Amino acid sequence: MKRTGYCGLYREKDVGKTETVMGWVQTKRDMGGVVFIDLRDREGILQVVFDIANLTEEDFATAETLKNESVVAVSGLIRLRDEETLNPKLATGLVELKATQVQLLSEAHPLPFAIEDQTPVREELRLKYRFLDIRRPQMLRNLRFRHQVQKAVQDYLDGDGFLAVETPLLTKSTPEGARDYLVPSRVHESCFYALPQSPQIFKQLLMVGGVDKYYQVARCFRDEDLRADRQPEFTQVDMEMSFVEQEDILQHLERLFKHLFEQTLGICFDEPFLRITWQHAMDVYGTDKPDIRFGLPIVDVSDIASSCGFSVFRNVMEAGGAVRAINVKGGADFTRTVIEELTQKAVSYGAKGMAWIAVKPDGELYSILTKYLTAEEMDAILKAVDAKPGDFVLFCADQLDTVRRTLGALRIDIAELLGLRRKDDFKFLFVTDFPQFEYSHEAGRYVATHHPFTMPYPEDVQYLTDDPARVRAQAYDVVLNGVELGSGSMRIYQKEVQQKMFEALGFTAEQIEDSFGFMVNAFQYGTPPHGGFAFGLDRLVMLMLGEDSLRQVIAFPKAKDASCLMTNAPDEVDLAQLKVLGITTGEW
Amino acid sequence: MKRTGYCGLYREKDVGKTETVMGWVQTKRDMGGVVFIDLRDREGILQVVFDIANLTEEDFATAETLKNESVVAVSGLIRLRDEETLNPKLATGLVELKATQVQLLSEAHPLPFAIEDQTPVREELRLKYRFLDIRRPQMLRNLRFRHQVQKAVQDYLDGDGFLAVETPLLTKSTPEGARDYLVPSRVHESCFYALPQSPQIFKQLLMVGGVDKYYQVARCFRDEDLRADRQPEFTQVDMEMSFVEQEDILQHLERLFKHLFEQTLGICFDEPFLRITWQHAMDVYGTDKPDIRFGLPIVDVSDIASSCGFSVFRNVMEAGGAVRAINVKGGADFTRTVIEELTQKAVSYGAKGMAWIAVKPDGELYSILTKYLTAEEMDAILKAVDAKPGDFVLFCADQLDTVRRTLGALRIDIAELLGLRRKDDFKFLFVTDFPQFEYSHEAGRYVATHHPFTMPYPEDVQYLTDDPARVRAQAYDVVLNGVELGSGSMRIYQKEVQQKMFEALGFTAEQIEDSFGFMVNAFQYGTPPHGGFAFGLDRLVMLMLGEDSLRQVIAFPKAKDASCLMTNAPDEVDLAQLKVLGITTGEW
Repeated sequence: MKRTGYCGLYREKDVGKTETVMGWVQTKRDMGGVVFIDLRDREGILQVVFDIANLTEEDFATAETLKNESVVAVSGLIRLRDEETLNPKLATGLVELKATQVQLLSEAHPLPFAIEDQTPVREELRLKYRFLDIRRPQMLRNLRFRHQVQKAVQDYLDGDGFLAVETPLLTKSTPEGARDYLVPSRVHESCFYALPQSPQIFKQLLMVGGVDKYYQVARCFRDEDLRADRQPEFTQVDMEMSFVEQEDILQHLERLFKHLFEQTLGICFDEPFLRITWQHAMDVYGTDKPDIRFGLPIVDVSDIASSCGFSVFRNVMEAGGAVRAINVKGGADFTRTVIEELTQKAVSYGAKGMAWIAVKPDGELYSILTKYLTAEEMDAILKAVDAKPGDFVLFCADQLDTVRRTLGALRIDIAELLGLRRKDDFKFLFVTDFPQFEYSHEAGRYVATHHPFTMPYPEDVQYLTDDPARVRAQAYDVVLNGVELGSGSMRIYQKEVQQKMFEALGFTAEQIEDSFGFMVNAFQYGTPPHGGFAFGLDRLVMLMLGEDSLRQVIAFPKAKDASCLMTNAPDEVDLAQLKVLGITTGEW
Repeated sequence: MKRTGYCGLYREKDVGKTETVMGWVQTKRDMGGVVFIDLRDREGILQVVFDIANLTEEDFATAETLKNESVVAVSGLIRLRDEETLNPKLATGLVELKATQVQLLSEAHPLPFAIEDQTPVREELRLKYRFLDIRRPQMLRNLRFRHQVQKAVQDYLDGDGFLAVETPLLTKSTPEGARDYLVPSRVHESCFYALPQSPQIFKQLLMVGGVDKYYQVARCFRDEDLRADRQPEFTQVDMEMSFVEQEDILQHLERLFKHLFEQTLGICFDEPFLRITWQHAMDVYGTDKPDIRFGLPIVDVSDIASSCGFSVFRNVMEAGGAVRAINVKGGADFTRTVIEELTQKAVSYGAKGMAWIAVKPDGELYSILTKYLTAEEMDAILKAVDAKPGDFVLFCADQLDTVRRTLGALRIDIAELLGLRRKDDFKFLFVTDFPQFEYSHEAGRYVATHHPFTMPYPEDVQYLTDDPARVRAQAYDVVLNGVELGSGSMRIYQKEVQQKMFEALGFTAEQIEDSFGFMVNAFQYGTPPHGGFAFGLDRLVMLMLGEDSLRQVIAFPKAKDASCLMTNAPDEVDLAQLKVLGITTGEW
């Protein structure tokens, strides 16, 4: 028997055709003399009717004893369903296959869970039996959608002159960044390869090599503890371009993402993507990856607070802190319970408490602040946050980073509470002008926010040595619905600027040579101005599908402890394998 | 200054346009008051003219002091070249850019080698400075061609309903096959991931999961000693299909390869690919990967030899060996030196010598055999190999495998000698019906020729236990010009057959459970008939480009000792990195 078509694709126009389909038995109903099965393949479900009158005894017996998820081949005639069995919910709901022949290809034992989207199954079980989990329509849809996104990326970049170049996965451990996965070398004693955290070095060298426009759907690795949106191995769409400026790259990215959404979801963005600076993002949204599906901007009321009658505010300002507020339009009817919840969240984010003002519809103010503020001070604050009757204003007074963190997070909580974060509402945002350095208390020095090859703005180069905190980088993120999709930057290509950068990072000449000598060396043979970007494919697909976990869009993901519950990797290996590598495990 | 076009793309139609180009200085000629440079970018070379009359003093000084491989931006007017400077060999040879402005973007130090295809450079130096080597037109062409082949693969398979699914690179060590690269786990004590030798297990599980048609441009790893056509990491195009038979897969592969060649090289194959069995390949070509660009078939003359007057032949036959011959049409004029060379090669392949007959154009026979064979015996042999005046017949008499190896290799040597192996002559071949098992003297048992999940022909299942050597597998290779591009097979999907297979391989029940339990378990929940194929992308691209080394088609390849001469990977790492992994290096 030879398959002639997919179950899920038969329609009214196929009535009268003799066809052979193959797939899995989704359900069976034995009506005595007539057996109905729903047969499932990648494309959907087709009703198959086995009538004792039309089949050999043996074939009917096969049909009668079919088990769920057994694999069968069935030949027969496509015909219209009887009136009473029409199923408008099914794409094939008008037709059915009247079987004339059936062959059991593979009998299924009872499954650990039913192959249905509706069945709730523990994720551990789904991961252990991933080969069954993938049969569920939602997982198959996700894998197929991922394929479509990847193909759209490849098509677009190919059409735009980007060359797909593969870079090594067995490479060298880098001194900065996350923890590397290491691979012992059998040939070189006591030496290790590292799996790449990104193809950063290689893509820059491809620019030195004149490739001009590069991309790669690249597998990357980070040996860090996992979260819902992290996996030890992940896939990024990695790009680099020569002879461009930041503006060229931003425009390129905007075209790319617009193309992807139109191509795969049919969503068109008419407006240009919003662009804000890192400083603006931190001030107005309290985070460098703002969710701009909703407003709820953070407003600075420090000026008023510093001289007001509320000592908590005053004290914070005297200690060099800040007082900022969010006006929740129409939030005046928040219940005590809601307000209490928000306050507890504020505390969990590091605030000491949460002051608030409810402006009742009749203009009456509910707030502890009425006790402490003069009418003028209150007016000034309400005016600053544009509070009208019906609004709810909440405050955070603390050191700046705590204020940002707290209000940034509360902003999300409130939007969630108000239903302002629809998963099918997609809002892109460019965040630009990241600071070149951030101070690491751990390292006791400034470290690169992006990486040491990121280009500062020319006008800020003068501050590299004396005032590093002031230096803005030509670095940018693409943020979608509050999630950082990816980041990029222009790269330093002038030796003198690179030298200053290393000095600002506190490297000695020897450290520069040891850690970066190879790269610096490469750049002295004629290096084009270049810059690039990389975004997480897994993460993008997750957002596009409205899924909450990367594991929903990866065929064989790792569990939280970086293990594969299906294959039981990582696992013990033969000692002989370790011996040939010259490594031992155990006590240190 | 903003780039308006690629150097290599300007033509007569662009004359009169004001343009800005950016690239590398290939050469400079200073004619006093006029400086000519050839400016190179990814697309080619454009002549740029700096005339002191048209430039600021500063800009002309910049032009005068340009060094080879420095990076510049130049604006100016595209104009026709003067008659005497026309260069028909160059795509841009009719035009030039008359510069009005120039900016030095990056000054180049003297390079370790010139950026020209013609310059001979030691490969070690090329690999160390790979970022410069890539600037050479041939390497850039190779990388671009590889991109085109990869894109054509993706387009074809996408259009044919294959889903691209990514499978894990951090996975589990497999008991059979080549040596694995291991990755120590930080979280799971004394446990290791393995980098995959192929996605075999995962792609079969995707079929269990109902994906139906899968492909992946997959990175694979083998920790083996390198040869010119091996790299520790390599890229294969990996495919698997459900509900198909071998014939469907062979037809699919033929369509795919024909599409690739037409799409990227413009070569159309009108004839179907030749198909021969493994047995036929071994008998007629002495190898399972015959080069069929030429004839030179091997002919079995054992029957005649077993009773002839030449004791060497007779003795070999009595010892259970074989006597086979190749007729080199028109080879009767081989010189003594050539014949001596061929004889030495035969010995190097394991033969004890090489008997031969030269049939001179006048019909006279030159051969030591004339002393021992009767005229009838000689006639019979010459007839068997269809020798005519002008031909040269060579013999190998030994145990069968030595005969095959020797004549298979001599066949290639002779074709090389006669110039029958043109690199732009592409001949595809399917080799089918591989033996299911081969006897491993090392393991002292039969091992799977392909892998333990390969499906035997149904009619041969009966021999699994008692006569394993007789079992033919539904396994097939695609061979191109004597190179194995890839291999595939139908897979076992019935539990009983799998059980017999493991028994034939001599596994105990415990070993089956330990090594394959996970896979066998998966197959009990309804498994579709399925099969697949994988081919080496690096190798295909190498052949298509007529290159002799995989390193010519990989951006950043490893050297023979599996090291990267550019980054110096593998390398020593911080002890702290090993400590966190709980491993130590050193004495065993």
